[in-house]
Amino acid sequence: LVTRLPAVGTTVFTRMSALAQQHGAVNLGQGFPDFACDPRLVDAVADAMRDGHNQYPPMTGTPALRQAIAAKISALYDHAYHVDTEITVTAGATQALTTAILCAVHPGDEVIVIEPAYDSYMPAIELAGGVVVPVPMALDDRGYHVPWDRVQAAVTGRTRMVVINTPHNPTGSILRAADLDALAGIVRGTDILLLSDEVYEHMVYDGQPHASVSRHPELAARAYVVSSFGKTYHVTGWKIGYVAAPAPLMVEFRKVHQYNVFSVNAPMQQGIATYMADPAAYEGLPAFYQHKRDLFRAGLAASRFELLPADGTYFQCVRYGAISDLPEAAFAEWLTTEIKVAAIPVSAFYRGGQESGIVRFCFAKAEATLANALERLARV
Amino acid sequence: LVTRLPAVGTTVFTRMSALAQQHGAVNLGQGFPDFACDPRLVDAVADAMRDGHNQYPPMTGTPALRQAIAAKISALYDHAYHVDTEITVTAGATQALTTAILCAVHPGDEVIVIEPAYDSYMPAIELAGGVVVPVPMALDDRGYHVPWDRVQAAVTGRTRMVVINTPHNPTGSILRAADLDALAGIVRGTDILLLSDEVYEHMVYDGQPHASVSRHPELAARAYVVSSFGKTYHVTGWKIGYVAAPAPLMVEFRKVHQYNVFSVNAPMQQGIATYMADPAAYEGLPAFYQHKRDLFRAGLAASRFELLPADGTYFQCVRYGAISDLPEAAFAEWLTTEIKVAAIPVSAFYRGGQESGIVRFCFAKAEATLANALERLARV
Ligand SMILES: CSCCC(=O)C(=O)O
Ligand SMILES: CSCCC(=O)C(=O)O
Repeated sequence: LVTRLPAVGTTVFTRMSALAQQHGAVNLGQGFPDFACDPRLVDAVADAMRDGHNQYPPMTGTPALRQAIAAKISALYDHAYHVDTEITVTAGATQALTTAILCAVHPGDEVIVIEPAYDSYMPAIELAGGVVVPVPMALDDRGYHVPWDRVQAAVTGRTRMVVINTPHNPTGSILRAADLDALAGIVRGTDILLLSDEVYEHMVYDGQPHASVSRHPELAARAYVVSSFGKTYHVTGWKIGYVAAPAPLMVEFRKVHQYNVFSVNAPMQQGIATYMADPAAYEGLPAFYQHKRDLFRAGLAASRFELLPADGTYFQCVRYGAISDLPEAAFAEWLTTEIKVAAIPVSAFYRGGQESGIVRFCFAKAEATLANALERLARV
Repeated sequence: LVTRLPAVGTTVFTRMSALAQQHGAVNLGQGFPDFACDPRLVDAVADAMRDGHNQYPPMTGTPALRQAIAAKISALYDHAYHVDTEITVTAGATQALTTAILCAVHPGDEVIVIEPAYDSYMPAIELAGGVVVPVPMALDDRGYHVPWDRVQAAVTGRTRMVVINTPHNPTGSILRAADLDALAGIVRGTDILLLSDEVYEHMVYDGQPHASVSRHPELAARAYVVSSFGKTYHVTGWKIGYVAAPAPLMVEFRKVHQYNVFSVNAPMQQGIATYMADPAAYEGLPAFYQHKRDLFRAGLAASRFELLPADGTYFQCVRYGAISDLPEAAFAEWLTTEIKVAAIPVSAFYRGGQESGIVRFCFAKAEATLANALERLARV
């Protein structure tokens, strides 16, 4: 059996979580909360099962959930997606991302990916037969940002798609309105599509707005916008997400979706729809996570880790040059096995494994967990 | 946006379910039960959520569920798959089928598909860049069967995979030990892989054994075997299935799986694992469905529909030549809108839409539903 994906091994998240467990380390590696979700959300799903929502939901998603998604996007980003033709519920955001790539990218098409990048984009592009064109983020005193001139320079007649991600994993940076305008200037007059990974949309801090592509009409007209209920509601293991896109793009998405998973867990969809009916379900999230971010940053301030800006996501990137000159993967392993705090090497998010002396911590943890980790990290 | 799947429209199941709903028809079209699942299964999932099984499970599946799957296969088919390296839980059987095709089929590879065929196989092969080589089933007095000489004749040096399905949707036929031996004779000495769709494994009637490929060591050594908890436990909307395969094949499956969905709903996996710990959870199923089959066949015996054999699945195929000479799709629509009983045209399972004057009814319904449908069908 000849492999379709020669470069692929087990994901860094799986490996670091296993290592953390093996060594009894506090797991600040893989991004997931260690606290319970709202019990009302659990009750809503249990009720949905007891009410008999257990057979195939529509291929596109449970109507009540598509409605709730459209209402949320309209309330937060002032864009009206059509409930029936422009929103599809997926088996997690990763499935949405991969399906969008599989439906749009033909063999030989080029896809621009900003690095560091979430690890599923590139294998999905390869599976579609596409060609990955990586553009590295710039890193300066203000933190990470996207060098749009380099994105512009990477565009060719074969460019089919640009993948963006805001808030950005792993860097914790965010795009701002000016970034979206710069991107619009690049794609204007071309038939380049966008894939916008916005799974951390409710984790943007210091009162800044989330620059959703769905807020930007010119970009939204050519974009697949992806989000995740797992991230939003502290249930990463539920694997329910969605994609929003203009109807002609959605037609193609659904052609692949219906033969990839056909449809998505019915009682989970119904329960989330019920829960989302109250906007309080997401309104308090930025403050909730900002508190954790502030606590984690304050705890590390006196350490020998150098904090990078953290404007969004539930990740904090740190430079460790004052501590060690190990490569990132080795340093993350050392932290996990010796200091007993697991982290993720940022190099894992670069196709070429580029080293920058930076690792990523996840602060989506109970305060006791963070305190425990901070105590260990202070000793380094 | 140029389509990747030019031939694909909305699935026949979605269309017929919508038509049934619109016309208030008894829906014997799309295959799903209209009765409740075991409340203990629902309780087990609710407990799993309350016990905190809400974050990413392992990419390969929750260990307890992989264990339960291995135990079941060992008990029923006497084959020992390795729990860690040979079983992966999927977001439904369709995802397992598509992922197996995407990981194994390279552009230009040929895949033999027995027609009529479940509608996801062919688009998945096209998405992988593969070439579908359809081989039609034969239909005679004994019902549908696979003409292995024609399968043999379809094999070329480019043949990468043969897709089989037993019990077979839509025909209700089953493979028997002699069929598997014939297939083994064809693939022996080649590097052809098998994809065996066995989602109706617990619906084989009249005391016949299910000829699982996992029971046949020679075939199992080169096969992806797929099954579904949705079918087995009357919860088609839960979208949890699995694939079992020898370790080297599973390595490739997981490379695609981890970037397609990453992992699968955690509390559902945990709940199903708990529920499956009692083999009674599946031991009674053949008798349960055989009763429905017998009831449905008895009810149609005096009608003008001609019953085909129904050895497995929860589907009953019927000839309607004594009633109408409409093409199958038109007849199924007429049944739905005029007689108010929805059916699926078997032509929808042929790439070329081949007509044979046969439609498929699903008898996975409460007795009252079946009685209601039978009363209407008797009037035809
Ligand atoms: C799908 S496991 C990875 C979770 C995650 O998004 C991350 O840790 O970056
Ligand atoms: C995934 S919807 C189709 C259900 C089914 O397997 C069938 O009706 O054949």
